[in-house]
Amino acid sequence: MDVMYLVALGSLIALGFAFSLFKKVKNQPEGTERMIEIATAIRKGASAYLRRQYKGVSIFFAVVFVVLFILSMMGYVNNFIPFAFLTGGFFSALSGFIGMKTATMANDRTAFAAKDSLNKGLRVAFSAGAVMGFVVVGLGLLDLSIWYFFLRFWYTTVDVLKSEALIIQNITSNMLTFGMGASCMALFARVGGGIFTKAADVGADLVGKVEAGIPEDDPRNPAVIADNVGDNVGDVAGMGADLYESYVGSIVSTSSLAVAAGFGMSGVAVPMLLAALGVIASIIGTFFVRTKEDATQKTLLKALRTGTYISAAVIAVASYFVVKAVLPGSIGVFWAIIAGLVAGMLIGFTTEYYTSDNYKPTKNLSATSETGPATVIIGGLSLGMMSTVWPVIIVGAAVIISFFACGGNILDPSSFNKGLYGVGVAAVGMLSTLGITLATDAYGPIADNAGGIAEMAHMGEEVRRRTDALDSLGNTTAATGKGFAIGSAALTALALIAAYISEVSIIAPNMQFNLSITNPPVLVGLFVGAMMPFLFAAMTMEAVGEAAQSIVHEVRRQFKNIKGLMEGKAQPDYASCVDLCTRSSQRLMLPPAILAVVVPVVLGLILGVNGVAGLLAGTTVSGFVLAVMMANAGGSWDNAKKYIEAGKHGGKGSESHKAAVVGDTVGDPFKDTSGPAINILIKLTSMVSIVFAGVVAVIHLM
Amino acid sequence: MDVMYLVALGSLIALGFAFSLFKKVKNQPEGTERMIEIATAIRKGASAYLRRQYKGVSIFFAVVFVVLFILSMMGYVNNFIPFAFLTGGFFSALSGFIGMKTATMANDRTAFAAKDSLNKGLRVAFSAGAVMGFVVVGLGLLDLSIWYFFLRFWYTTVDVLKSEALIIQNITSNMLTFGMGASCMALFARVGGGIFTKAADVGADLVGKVEAGIPEDDPRNPAVIADNVGDNVGDVAGMGADLYESYVGSIVSTSSLAVAAGFGMSGVAVPMLLAALGVIASIIGTFFVRTKEDATQKTLLKALRTGTYISAAVIAVASYFVVKAVLPGSIGVFWAIIAGLVAGMLIGFTTEYYTSDNYKPTKNLSATSETGPATVIIGGLSLGMMSTVWPVIIVGAAVIISFFACGGNILDPSSFNKGLYGVGVAAVGMLSTLGITLATDAYGPIADNAGGIAEMAHMGEEVRRRTDALDSLGNTTAATGKGFAIGSAALTALALIAAYISEVSIIAPNMQFNLSITNPPVLVGLFVGAMMPFLFAAMTMEAVGEAAQSIVHEVRRQFKNIKGLMEGKAQPDYASCVDLCTRSSQRLMLPPAILAVVVPVVLGLILGVNGVAGLLAGTTVSGFVLAVMMANAGGSWDNAKKYIEAGKHGGKGSESHKAAVVGDTVGDPFKDTSGPAINILIKLTSMVSIVFAGVVAVIHLM
Repeated sequence: MDVMYLVALGSLIALGFAFSLFKKVKNQPEGTERMIEIATAIRKGASAYLRRQYKGVSIFFAVVFVVLFILSMMGYVNNFIPFAFLTGGFFSALSGFIGMKTATMANDRTAFAAKDSLNKGLRVAFSAGAVMGFVVVGLGLLDLSIWYFFLRFWYTTVDVLKSEALIIQNITSNMLTFGMGASCMALFARVGGGIFTKAADVGADLVGKVEAGIPEDDPRNPAVIADNVGDNVGDVAGMGADLYESYVGSIVSTSSLAVAAGFGMSGVAVPMLLAALGVIASIIGTFFVRTKEDATQKTLLKALRTGTYISAAVIAVASYFVVKAVLPGSIGVFWAIIAGLVAGMLIGFTTEYYTSDNYKPTKNLSATSETGPATVIIGGLSLGMMSTVWPVIIVGAAVIISFFACGGNILDPSSFNKGLYGVGVAAVGMLSTLGITLATDAYGPIADNAGGIAEMAHMGEEVRRRTDALDSLGNTTAATGKGFAIGSAALTALALIAAYISEVSIIAPNMQFNLSITNPPVLVGLFVGAMMPFLFAAMTMEAVGEAAQSIVHEVRRQFKNIKGLMEGKAQPDYASCVDLCTRSSQRLMLPPAILAVVVPVVLGLILGVNGVAGLLAGTTVSGFVLAVMMANAGGSWDNAKKYIEAGKHGGKGSESHKAAVVGDTVGDPFKDTSGPAINILIKLTSMVSIVFAGVVAVIHLM
Repeated sequence: MDVMYLVALGSLIALGFAFSLFKKVKNQPEGTERMIEIATAIRKGASAYLRRQYKGVSIFFAVVFVVLFILSMMGYVNNFIPFAFLTGGFFSALSGFIGMKTATMANDRTAFAAKDSLNKGLRVAFSAGAVMGFVVVGLGLLDLSIWYFFLRFWYTTVDVLKSEALIIQNITSNMLTFGMGASCMALFARVGGGIFTKAADVGADLVGKVEAGIPEDDPRNPAVIADNVGDNVGDVAGMGADLYESYVGSIVSTSSLAVAAGFGMSGVAVPMLLAALGVIASIIGTFFVRTKEDATQKTLLKALRTGTYISAAVIAVASYFVVKAVLPGSIGVFWAIIAGLVAGMLIGFTTEYYTSDNYKPTKNLSATSETGPATVIIGGLSLGMMSTVWPVIIVGAAVIISFFACGGNILDPSSFNKGLYGVGVAAVGMLSTLGITLATDAYGPIADNAGGIAEMAHMGEEVRRRTDALDSLGNTTAATGKGFAIGSAALTALALIAAYISEVSIIAPNMQFNLSITNPPVLVGLFVGAMMPFLFAAMTMEAVGEAAQSIVHEVRRQFKNIKGLMEGKAQPDYASCVDLCTRSSQRLMLPPAILAVVVPVVLGLILGVNGVAGLLAGTTVSGFVLAVMMANAGGSWDNAKKYIEAGKHGGKGSESHKAAVVGDTVGDPFKDTSGPAINILIKLTSMVSIVFAGVVAVIHLM
């Protein structure tokens, strides 16, 4: 029996489980009339945003589709690529859409459940987060299965290929390219959502908190609904699309190396089965995320952690038997999976160490606030830079271990594909339990929103305290999630470089490679690649600044023009802020996205395939370091501020607190816009290069 | 006749010219008693610092010398290397020492001359800056000549080698290693000086300006002398040692590739002659730096620029004839020189565009101050990141052009050494007019100090206005200087990678290279290399923060304990601040310096030569981008603040100004400590790798 049926089954199980959780969340009571009113406003805003985003993105997808279609007519790219591109984008968007629908449905329900107990609040928020986790996994596997069965049918019935090896190769290299659709969608979702959420957040804070002196989430602030919408479109829909892309990207890049590595169909099956088993492991894990009614924050964290660890343990054990059964001669593949799993967790720990206020770095950072904002900024930047050391060492070790374990030999270049297949497997291993890790990640913004609703609906101190506890718990678990996301991005990108070279060799067997770092196109590619994440970070940060500026003006205008607003006698115009955020984020997300697609193609046309390989390596290493730095600096600034708000170094309202707020504001686009967007940039660059490999190769062979 | 006699002659001309300028400056009147008193305090502080630094550095050099000596006894490194290491460090230190002596002698003289006219002030400051420029060049060429003649004597008389090619190869590979001594010294001078100057600056500002509300350079501030000392030890002595290292580094790395490139002794002669001719070109240029007595700032800038451009034009023309005469068959080498010269200038222009308040980026940045410090920081960071695009493209173009012009062919790896020799020549071309570019760079801190003395000696508004004009002029010319420094660092580093590989091939002809970016050790090396500049920047920024903190406490203590200080009735204890800065900078410069030396050796022992090559490439590309970003962000923050102080966006004392001061404070360690230190890190990593290549190769062949 074709093992791919198991993958399809895994997909259905994931989607079924997601649906049952969805219904469970939906059956929770919605709360008071006031809560429903607020939640509806958030829901409407989020839907309006998504509608507009999908409209804008459709145009982009249509243009790229036409380009790819023309290229396929000219024979530069395979006929299926334009369609694979579309489905990749479609399923990625759908993941984000469902995730966000669930999140906006769950936020008032979470707030209402938190009225009873911390644990009940957690259950609702976590279940809603898990819906997204399993939808991402389920749709990812669905897309993979559909294409697999369609292509196998095609190459065995319609356009019959001679050998099984050729069939597999054609299947996997077609599937590889739907990664580009997913990556493009992820980029739009992350960048657009990231700009929206931070513009609203910064705009609301700058005028509301700083100028008008009203508390956070105060209903008098015209940007408050936009801020809550932002959490959903950025941190939920954006993250869903992002991790959908990581997930399928790691699977297809690994599969595409299977033939070149000499593992054949068994090599394709391993990452697929690993993913399917990951669904089961994740489901098992979710049952351990429960605790007593009188749970404290500490026991809740333990419950969440237990869930993730049990899933990891299940997949570790199961993968041994999978490898033993499917690739009996290459048990090293199992060790590559373990290397990936362990590396993901270790990166998560370092993230937590550098960003949590339980440890020295963030404690020290909050102390720098006593000498003003400048020292807070310097401290946060150097903390972020310092925090890159261990992740680099961990990824380096994972690369070396998985390379050697899978039969790579550095003295024998013909074995490289074997070794790099191992690196890809490590990435898949890291992401196999995405169902549950994403659940612990996605529940954070839901809890955050629940807190906003509790505040706006005046539900009292106790509820707010509980939602705050859930939110801050989310920050800690998100650290682990981020570790998996960035670590898998680096490993996937390395597998994609290998996939790129193997694609080019298939398209243009006469192409001469010289990937030596002393070859000038490679060198220049490395330089440009190292620069790209910086340019990308700059563009996204500037976009946040520009969008925030327009919100600042709008909020100021409303405070001035709407009489009785500050006294709570008149309603602000929430919708205009949401609309403004939507419009500016849609406008500003385009330039960085276009850049990410255009640069690898243009550089390829100028410098050829060696230059592109250099570009990919440069973007990966520099992007990894910069993304880790930005994410950790941002996380630490956030928590340093919260640490002060908890009463340290003068507490809320002190000069120290003001200084820490500056750090937090700088950190917002760092950790929620630019940092995660770099993650996607790394993989999108590779995906685009692979899709356009044919064009570049043909032009340079002319 | 051996053309190297011309190099020795060039060295003597440079030193002679420097001496005549030194005497000219010395003959200027020193000014009033009060001025002499202040200048003496600065001089004493600077000397005390240097004494202590050289003591600390001596221990480091002694340790490394012993290690190298033992290794040379064991046959892992050549017998001359320990001594070449020492002379490299000695001459680098001497350059810094003489430069600083001249600068501290010139600062009160400049202030006094500025009493007469802007032009007179410029002449004194520029002449003093030129002393350093020509001392650096002269001592660099002297070190080169001495070793050349000694080694030629040795290999032709004592330890006679069979062929001329072997002799040249041995000479150049020995000379290459004195680069490590120069790099180590440069690192200590830059990092130590950088920590000192910024700790004093930040410390003085935080308490004096912000807390006590007294103006900058006020004599009541106990840290004011330390601040002025810092300008000398950081921006003068540090810069001198830094550029000494760049200068000799580019020459020796290019020469060492000459034999491998097939150019033989002629290939060695070209960079040497280019440097010698650069002396003449620079001297010619200095005569054009003069203007009428009623000069405005604009005409002065024009005068300075004219000097630099004329030098560049002279060297461009002369180099054509040199190449024609020495390497008649390879006129492409001439185009490599031109590529380097033009690239240096273009990078300088982009630096100016991004950092000068005459252009949009810095103007926009100063506007962000209206919404507070957070937007200033975000704006500055994204400006810095954005500013990396053009330098990367320019360096990339220079690499490609010089590679092809000198006979490199990307399809023929055996031609790579030819092409990379061209890249080295481009770096030498860029630095050939260092005599004058360094002069326009070094005069800035002298003018800055003159301003400080004018303020403290109450010389009146007019003099202060003139010294301020000179200082801000210096910022503009320094931008060009920085372009040359960073651009040449990148090109030199590439030549050094090639030199590294060629060294390893000589030491271990059986070593198997696989420098492909898909080779895991190369990949992991790239990752670690990309991370190193971040770690280095973090360590140096933290060091500045820590040292500044101690100054803050000391200044607060003095304000509290010394009665009558604020009323101007009592003298502060300047010496204690100087001493504190000295001690903390000496203590804090060690960890990053040791790290820079240890990492390439340890990584080499683990990952072998391919890993080291990856490390070098990773450090170069990521370091280049990060250094440009930090330097430009810092420069722009500085000028945005000055722009506001000139009356824009509310002017001095406004909320906008306070926000801009935060940016400037963050920018200080960016542009004056971490950024320049990364420059040196890039080359030091290569130099250390080359020196320890033997050890790494032997261990990995075992």
